[in-house]
Amino acid sequence: MPTTVKAYAATSPTAPLTPTTIELRDVGPHDVRIAIGYVGICHSDIHTARGEWGATDYPIVLGHEIAGVVAEVGPQVTRFRVGDRVGVGCLVDSCRRCAYCRRGDEQFCAEGYVETYSSTGRDGRPTQGGYAEAIVVTEDFVLRIPDGMALDVAAPLLCAGITAYSPLRRWGAGPGTRVAVVGLGGLGHMAVQLASAMGAEVTVLSQSMRKQEDALRLGATHYAATSDPDTFSRLAASFDLVVNTVSASIDVDAHLSLLAVDGTMVNVGIPEHPVSLDVLSLLMRRVSYAGSNIGGIRETQEMLDFCAGHGIAAVIETIGAEQVNEAYERVVTSDVRYRFVIDTATLA
Amino acid sequence: MPTTVKAYAATSPTAPLTPTTIELRDVGPHDVRIAIGYVGICHSDIHTARGEWGATDYPIVLGHEIAGVVAEVGPQVTRFRVGDRVGVGCLVDSCRRCAYCRRGDEQFCAEGYVETYSSTGRDGRPTQGGYAEAIVVTEDFVLRIPDGMALDVAAPLLCAGITAYSPLRRWGAGPGTRVAVVGLGGLGHMAVQLASAMGAEVTVLSQSMRKQEDALRLGATHYAATSDPDTFSRLAASFDLVVNTVSASIDVDAHLSLLAVDGTMVNVGIPEHPVSLDVLSLLMRRVSYAGSNIGGIRETQEMLDFCAGHGIAAVIETIGAEQVNEAYERVVTSDVRYRFVIDTATLA
Repeated sequence: MPTTVKAYAATSPTAPLTPTTIELRDVGPHDVRIAIGYVGICHSDIHTARGEWGATDYPIVLGHEIAGVVAEVGPQVTRFRVGDRVGVGCLVDSCRRCAYCRRGDEQFCAEGYVETYSSTGRDGRPTQGGYAEAIVVTEDFVLRIPDGMALDVAAPLLCAGITAYSPLRRWGAGPGTRVAVVGLGGLGHMAVQLASAMGAEVTVLSQSMRKQEDALRLGATHYAATSDPDTFSRLAASFDLVVNTVSASIDVDAHLSLLAVDGTMVNVGIPEHPVSLDVLSLLMRRVSYAGSNIGGIRETQEMLDFCAGHGIAAVIETIGAEQVNEAYERVVTSDVRYRFVIDTATLA
Repeated sequence: MPTTVKAYAATSPTAPLTPTTIELRDVGPHDVRIAIGYVGICHSDIHTARGEWGATDYPIVLGHEIAGVVAEVGPQVTRFRVGDRVGVGCLVDSCRRCAYCRRGDEQFCAEGYVETYSSTGRDGRPTQGGYAEAIVVTEDFVLRIPDGMALDVAAPLLCAGITAYSPLRRWGAGPGTRVAVVGLGGLGHMAVQLASAMGAEVTVLSQSMRKQEDALRLGATHYAATSDPDTFSRLAASFDLVVNTVSASIDVDAHLSLLAVDGTMVNVGIPEHPVSLDVLSLLMRRVSYAGSNIGGIRETQEMLDFCAGHGIAAVIETIGAEQVNEAYERVVTSDVRYRFVIDTATLA
């Protein structure tokens, strides 16, 4: 039962990630120790590694798209047994007392939820993520990976999957609704599959026509290039929901013009700079501009089960841990179809 | 039956409004000629008079908060008789065929609705508003002023009233909801009364403490000054709905921070310049920034009946037509409690 495990860590905003070891906390009464099999690379990992989202405490182990197998359970654990296939996403704890926690929306925890990395854990030490051989998490924040879903393609569902799923549910994607997904990256390729499985008519809006074939294969009915100015006039007022997965700055007014009356554009990516918009874009067709950030534990399990039921998974490129720095560069330049997943066996 | 009536018109972006006469169109089979008693002064009138919302065709008669008495009806008119007390708001016609018109949301007419002034009417001439002795409108766009509601305090309901009412209904203001009204002017003083009558707990956010007494008298439970920086931390995450009636630029992020999880801020005023916001303000508590513009004919009648049922009306300062230019200056400097209404008897 090693409490010291191998990992990959960022040590400064500019240095490449390097091999290290981390100490896991002891497995408490309600804790589960998970032998990590695969961990996805989320753009948030890169922002945090590089200190782009405020000061980062180094060294830090990134990774919040974790899939593995239960290796040890505390004496009070009731929901998991050694050998269970499980996942961990962006949340590893919360206050559990506030109204949001009690209704399963831990992502809105009034005291602030504990993030998988770069938070302070219940042992008082900085939490460390999944670019590691193992992680210890309280059982209430552990998800069950459905039978028949491979661990490698499940891993990205724990962040990219739920981040796409939650707003589609919140804003009612389903039969008879017209959904546009802006950007076909890690988040976008999940949003397309999910919205399509929910029964919505899905259009992908990407910068160029380059990813058209992929989009249609993933379930989109239509595809248009945002670099073509005709796209915005042709598709004016024609969507009930626009899911914007792009973090880069976009022309918000142009995208709002795609919404039908009472439509909503929801951002799931976080632009680095403030955005600007003309309030008339909101007023004339009573449209809304909203944001959505991951989802709660209950909804994450629902999403995993939904994916299993519809044969949905992430489309991945598996890498060894030593390729992580190269992968980061490729994520930054959008050169990945559609998610890098680290095989943690390569840490050993 | 005069087809030429006295009016007040703007003749250039900078000249004061001056007396004039206008030709009314003949009363068609479905038309109603209304002898105007009172007409409210809306800030939109001023923007249009001064060419601040794009080029204006001069001369133009402003006014879309019209209350009067039916003076003549066309042979096919079924819903009104001479002597009925009626109102006209911002809409005087629409395509009537599109899905929005058919469901009573003429404000979203796919072909664009016909505005009471500065549109082209069915006679092919520019529509002219209510700073006049009379107006001819097709009966489907004429509202009934409920018994017991005086014409002068009814007039502003036709724009300010419906503009405040529609978003409160759309976003579910009612018992158990916490509504903040930003700005206590023509729109704000209606929003406070309406939200309060709907059963919501209403807080007024105004620049200074100056209007506190009025706000409480109109139905607000709380009042806070936005010039006090403590206001935003004290009221953080505490509203389900923020109705922003202010056209001047505000700190959008600061106001979004007032919203609880899943809350909405809705703009009913139109800022002159684009607004800027940090998408994180939307993301962290899944809040929405929306806009709302007037309402349909059916909903306007519903609003008038709601006001009558709850003893709600506009708080007005009645003026003669010759005071309109002075009133414009006072509206621009927010020196009116809370709506100027022109007594059109002074045109004669």
